[in-house]
Amino acid sequence: MVTAVVLIQAERALLEETAEALAALKGVSEVYTVSGEWDIVAMVRCKSNEAVADVVAGKMLQIPGINRTKTLVAFRSFTELDLDAIFPVA
Amino acid sequence: MVTAVVLIQAERALLEETAEALAALKGVSEVYTVSGEWDIVAMVRCKSNEAVADVVAGKMLQIPGINRTKTLVAFRSFTELDLDAIFPVA
Amino acid sequence: MVTAVVLIQAERALLEETAEALAALKGVSEVYTVSGEWDIVAMVRCKSNEAVADVVAGKMLQIPGINRTKTLVAFRSFTELDLDAIFPVA
Amino acid sequence: MVTAVVLIQAERALLEETAEALAALKGVSEVYTVSGEWDIVAMVRCKSNEAVADVVAGKMLQIPGINRTKTLVAFRSFTELDLDAIFPVA
Amino acid sequence: MVTAVVLIQAERALLEETAEALAALKGVSEVYTVSGEWDIVAMVRCKSNEAVADVVAGKMLQIPGINRTKTLVAFRSFTELDLDAIFPVA
Amino acid sequence: MVTAVVLIQAERALLEETAEALAALKGVSEVYTVSGEWDIVAMVRCKSNEAVADVVAGKMLQIPGINRTKTLVAFRSFTELDLDAIFPVA
Amino acid sequence: MVTAVVLIQAERALLEETAEALAALKGVSEVYTVSGEWDIVAMVRCKSNEAVADVVAGKMLQIPGINRTKTLVAFRSFTELDLDAIFPVA
Amino acid sequence: MVTAVVLIQAERALLEETAEALAALKGVSEVYTVSGEWDIVAMVRCKSNEAVADVVAGKMLQIPGINRTKTLVAFRSFTELDLDAIFPVA
Amino acid sequence: MVTAVVLIQAERALLEETAEALAALKGVSEVYTVSGEWDIVAMVRCKSNEAVADVVAGKMLQIPGINRTKTLVAFRSFTELDLDAIFPVA
Amino acid sequence: MVTAVVLIQAERALLEETAEALAALKGVSEVYTVSGEWDIVAMVRCKSNEAVADVVAGKMLQIPGINRTKTLVAFRSFTELDLDAIFPVA
Repeated sequence: MVTAVVLIQAERALLEETAEALAALKGVSEVYTVSGEWDIVAMVRCKSNEAVADVVAGKMLQIPGINRTKTLVAFRSFTELDLDAIFPVA
Repeated sequence: MVTAVVLIQAERALLEETAEALAALKGVSEVYTVSGEWDIVAMVRCKSNEAVADVVAGKMLQIPGINRTKTLVAFRSFTELDLDAIFPVA
Repeated sequence: MVTAVVLIQAERALLEETAEALAALKGVSEVYTVSGEWDIVAMVRCKSNEAVADVVAGKMLQIPGINRTKTLVAFRSFTELDLDAIFPVA
Repeated sequence: MVTAVVLIQAERALLEETAEALAALKGVSEVYTVSGEWDIVAMVRCKSNEAVADVVAGKMLQIPGINRTKTLVAFRSFTELDLDAIFPVA
Repeated sequence: MVTAVVLIQAERALLEETAEALAALKGVSEVYTVSGEWDIVAMVRCKSNEAVADVVAGKMLQIPGINRTKTLVAFRSFTELDLDAIFPVA
Repeated sequence: MVTAVVLIQAERALLEETAEALAALKGVSEVYTVSGEWDIVAMVRCKSNEAVADVVAGKMLQIPGINRTKTLVAFRSFTELDLDAIFPVA
Repeated sequence: MVTAVVLIQAERALLEETAEALAALKGVSEVYTVSGEWDIVAMVRCKSNEAVADVVAGKMLQIPGINRTKTLVAFRSFTELDLDAIFPVA
Repeated sequence: MVTAVVLIQAERALLEETAEALAALKGVSEVYTVSGEWDIVAMVRCKSNEAVADVVAGKMLQIPGINRTKTLVAFRSFTELDLDAIFPVA
Repeated sequence: MVTAVVLIQAERALLEETAEALAALKGVSEVYTVSGEWDIVAMVRCKSNEAVADVVAGKMLQIPGINRTKTLVAFRSFTELDLDAIFPVA
Repeated sequence: MVTAVVLIQAERALLEETAEALAALKGVSEVYTVSGEWDIVAMVRCKSNEAVADVVAGKMLQIPGINRTKTLVAFRSFTELDLDAIFPVA
């Protein structure tokens, strides 16, 4: 499984709607509105880099209110949790 | 539960050890080494902002190899998952 | 009580009106027009991170003239004053 | 009364001590450890710009652990509170 | 007397007119068009921070061609000149 | 006469001494300690660009505590004052 | 042969079309959509700096969706591959 | 003679026309289209800072396609060439 | 195959040695010294994100002279070439 | 002929010596000390990109006092002068 942390700057007036729409996307496991320079953090978990791109550069395009994104692709995950069980990828 | 996304710039030579040490901290649920401007993303989940600070500005201090951190405190989470069940906070 | 320091870049021509409108918001205790890179600093004091978000990403949206905001969520406060008495949060 | 908002980057290992030492300074009314690019916000309230400088460029120098500061001098304050009564300046 | 150094980015096509209009403002003693990242430097000399704000965030608003300003409020002046005599403030 | 506005980042612990030493330099008419990203602004007034360089890259070198400078060379001055009379250049 | 690495920020909604159009240009050997601050990396291989400019500042202009480019001109290449054979330049 | 190095960001679609128009200006000796963050470098050589300003903030205004300029005014030149002979200034 | 474009800032005095050592690494297909803000671009081609991390955060650590790296992980490649044939990955 | 404009940040105390040493290098036609963010601009004129690299990443290494360089490689030159005659390249 490939995990990506997507940092998002969003239209202030659409913040909550944007976060909700992101959370409803297949491939997006959790979405957080956050303090600071970025407005939203979306956790994307897919089978491959190509599938991450399909979410970030594909499906996310149908969601209005996103001004800028920066995608951090995970090289490796470190956790005591069984991420594959918690976040099953179709 | 308060979630915080901690972006970390780490000493290159200690990257994997740093990530492992972070993942072993109480209050840290997952750690990812990532591509780009930041080296590591740590997900912190605690009961309050003060508890997040105890992790970020307290426990993390015992870990060598961390050069810079930027903490994004979550205002709200959007997910179909039951985060409180997945990430129980003592 | 959660305190947040909101740094704001505002439309120059609306600066004073924007500051006044911000100061009238419930949850905002003080507003300062300031020198330098930022135009306005608003002190937000609420019961929780969610309530801070309701002010910063919610109520502030009805105020015109705000171009960019950066919210610094306080982890802990250090003061000899009794902030809870001075700034009662409903 | 002149108010100044001082944004501070501090040595991670000394964060809490630095915040406490700042809060004990005459002329500093409140100190907050915060999330994001800055580590500490100190509210300075004095009689004049010169007095603010005596705090920021003078007294603060005896405090170890401060790496960088950015001082936002307030032009005007907007609040329903009586700041002069709450924060009496000698 | 409070001195403020105002760094200004201006519309290229209006540079000289903008500089002339700034120099004609009460509270502005000298204006320089300069090389580099900023286009104009205006020296503002007033009785108080509030009066500086009236110039920078008030009167300057009637002048077209100003895109961005950064105001450096002086804490203290060091000179062998008698600035109060040279730049009398009403 | 060539005017240059020199923005200076200085060692915090030496700020006032640095400002005083700068003000005593031939060719420097006024020095201000200021709020924000820069610590000191020095006004340099000389006969030519070469003479400005002799001050900025020459004499200033004997002054400890200066970390970084940015020199804005003035193209033209706009003022009702007689700058040549106020700031005679040998 | 002169190689240039062109970093490109592109219109999110046109990302894949832009990448495909770039890859079809004569002088462009490979195009990658990438994570992070830049959206696309294009490898340009030509006979001279002038020919690189014809691609970057010329042919690329017919492609919609490109917001910003930064061209890194290679001084020298280090590889065990025979780049001239792999990427023949007309 | 005063030399200034003008760094220019230009409209991509007009790059070559802009460079040609710049090169035809009196006071501009050479123009280069370049790789990287800036698009064009123009060498300006005039009798005084005021004359440089007349070129940079005056004549250049008639040329379309220039988005941003940064002018580096030379303090001194170091060369074995006789610049005054090569670049005679009227 | 996962491709990554690694932007590298290197010690000036070791530039060529660093580039040569990078090119000799398994998983690195080509290395370019380049003009501008970055000094070296290395093309990394591996079987997975983890394998890319083994190169970037692992093997590259034995190479002296590397100050900073930014890794752009490719989502997709667009080319008429058969990259898998040209750059076989063990 | 390939022209490169090299922007240089230099040790303040060695500025003039550095400029003189640069000007004496084969391949460097002119050097200017300049105002602003950069300290020195060196004009490099060579037969190829490789030769430019030999100057910028090679010969310049023997010169002390250079902290940072940014090289802008020219794609094309626009001038009424005969640059090849003025700046003969061996």
